[in-house]
Amino acid sequence: MEIEVTDFNDSESLINQEFRHEWYVIETILTSMPLHLKASSQSGIEGNPIFDPVGTNQFIKTELVKQGWYPNIPIPKIYQFLGKDIDCGKTGILIEFKFSNYPFLLNNVLRSELFFKSKITLQSEVTQLVIIITKAKMFPASNSTLYYEQAVKQLTALTKYKVFDVPIRLVGLFEKIEETTTIVWSQYEQQRSRKIIQQKQGQCIISLGKKQNSRSIIKIL
Amino acid sequence: MEIEVTDFNDSESLINQEFRHEWYVIETILTSMPLHLKASSQSGIEGNPIFDPVGTNQFIKTELVKQGWYPNIPIPKIYQFLGKDIDCGKTGILIEFKFSNYPFLLNNVLRSELFFKSKITLQSEVTQLVIIITKAKMFPASNSTLYYEQAVKQLTALTKYKVFDVPIRLVGLFEKIEETTTIVWSQYEQQRSRKIIQQKQGQCIISLGKKQNSRSIIKIL
Repeated sequence: MEIEVTDFNDSESLINQEFRHEWYVIETILTSMPLHLKASSQSGIEGNPIFDPVGTNQFIKTELVKQGWYPNIPIPKIYQFLGKDIDCGKTGILIEFKFSNYPFLLNNVLRSELFFKSKITLQSEVTQLVIIITKAKMFPASNSTLYYEQAVKQLTALTKYKVFDVPIRLVGLFEKIEETTTIVWSQYEQQRSRKIIQQKQGQCIISLGKKQNSRSIIKIL
Repeated sequence: MEIEVTDFNDSESLINQEFRHEWYVIETILTSMPLHLKASSQSGIEGNPIFDPVGTNQFIKTELVKQGWYPNIPIPKIYQFLGKDIDCGKTGILIEFKFSNYPFLLNNVLRSELFFKSKITLQSEVTQLVIIITKAKMFPASNSTLYYEQAVKQLTALTKYKVFDVPIRLVGLFEKIEETTTIVWSQYEQQRSRKIIQQKQGQCIISLGKKQNSRSIIKIL
């Protein structure tokens, strides 16, 4: 896929000074990842291809683990009212995949801010940087799921009033329009299940929606 | 119902000095409200009585509107990436009902913080105080929905690091244990629908769950 990034609280300098290698690994994984799709279960568009959060999540996590990252880092007991675990982490970097409902973004940002400010250790490291991975608005997706452009606006507004200090690199996943794109199609045990029973490689072409600002249309080849 | 409150950023003094009447109205509505219940659609406990967010929401909103509060205050266009509207408001007070999924709490807190800091006007008033209404943990409820005790922990942790400055009064809705309790039972058009087709008054008794920390058991009389 293609990526776009927006940096908050000077995460760019921090990455260039301290985490150049780690970022290179993440960037390589994301840009070599095929677009993951699944069938929508939303009435009216049932069966249509939409962005697949679970498949995408699994791909990135598996690749990061191969590169020595820790998956599902447990949140210390005193902060468990903020959630169970963090998607991935290593050497003071936390990575969160945010493809689900939009309010999870600010929840995760505030949680990260607490880890950062409290200097609590996660896998023996204090948090220095948070990388949040989102999908672009261009992809048809489940209702109310977060997209990159919306996340940029939310974090920019909060930055204006200095609500959080933790350095964050926000990443958006995109694809080229009107080009043949490699995909992975995942089939789930049942609707709303997170259990993949089959994955197939394939190809698609993404076209812009007819109305301005509408999602694009994905045609499986 | 019975209520419990926790104040953040000195909302208590602010209420005592400026908003004594407004709080009195809110308190009277909440303490005169019957417990709203509906049938669970979760497999395993299908049909069991659980806390009814939509019915509770509607009751409070209707009563507030009778007292001159504005319902569904539109969020100004420049902040619409943070949501569509605010549940209720008047004279610089915003009220949010938070009975849904837990990440919405921090989303709402950050959104309120932005309204507060930016001094943007909502119904011609700048935001001075936010009142967030939640249900207690004691009620059986849909999976992953926010409860008061969890909200107290989240906001307390954030306050420790001064993440937000907006004065917030967090309200928890409770009921007495082992006493006859008045209820309103709402029947919905279908599962996950927000359209009530019938409401019936009734009574229940709430008993503590057998295990420590488990939800209580509601017996309809």
